[in-house]
Amino acid sequence: MYSIIVCGHGVLGEAMKDSVEMIFGKTNEFYSLSFYPGENTYDLLNKMELLIQNNHMEDVLILVDLFAGSPYNAAAILGMKNQNVEIVAGMNLALCLEALANRESKSLSEIVEYLKGIGPETIKSFRDITQVDEEDDLE
Amino acid sequence: MYSIIVCGHGVLGEAMKDSVEMIFGKTNEFYSLSFYPGENTYDLLNKMELLIQNNHMEDVLILVDLFAGSPYNAAAILGMKNQNVEIVAGMNLALCLEALANRESKSLSEIVEYLKGIGPETIKSFRDITQVDEEDDLE
Repeated sequence: MYSIIVCGHGVLGEAMKDSVEMIFGKTNEFYSLSFYPGENTYDLLNKMELLIQNNHMEDVLILVDLFAGSPYNAAAILGMKNQNVEIVAGMNLALCLEALANRESKSLSEIVEYLKGIGPETIKSFRDITQVDEEDDLE
Repeated sequence: MYSIIVCGHGVLGEAMKDSVEMIFGKTNEFYSLSFYPGENTYDLLNKMELLIQNNHMEDVLILVDLFAGSPYNAAAILGMKNQNVEIVAGMNLALCLEALANRESKSLSEIVEYLKGIGPETIKSFRDITQVDEEDDLE
């Protein structure tokens, strides 16, 4: 079972973990890391390495806020060194919930493929949905 | 120019606003709303209505964390009553930054189409990107 780390600028990772737990209940092997103003990519890399070591993680999925931001860059350095670290950028609440819910049925590489597949569907506009509903009502 | 509200479970909206400001600098007409344990959809709807009234917003883009969650449902009630309220579910940092960066060039309906268009590209996996780089190196 892969461990999950959520990490973003500021306390976005912590807030994401709290949101996940508001819906999903208390989690295990689900960690958040913050990235404070004044820190750099290498500070964050050190925090990631310590978190992974201290918790004896093997397969690790790191969800980060933004492609090419510091949280992504720190995670990418880990991913280059370690094939058991996978990174998905563009985290939102739906992706985090799916990562957690599919932990017992999917391997680390499978969850990455799965998140990429469902990612686009997690972004929806209200007017599109109501239009579909109205079209359904007409049928 | 549309106003922007970011809202998620717990303090995800506040944390998102702080993350946006870490990258973009101080924002205007960009608001966050929290949704605390114990509150319900109608409590949040009241807070949204007050925020919009008190700040005299006209066109409003509400970015929420999750389709069909309470923040989405509260925003959808507003969207049903008011054509000047648009909602995009599945917010992540890239979508929030794009919503902010395109404010002077796009109308409310245009930004919704734009965010839906770029949404899928905001979700990327590290191994895909490094594979593309490796393929580029071979050419």
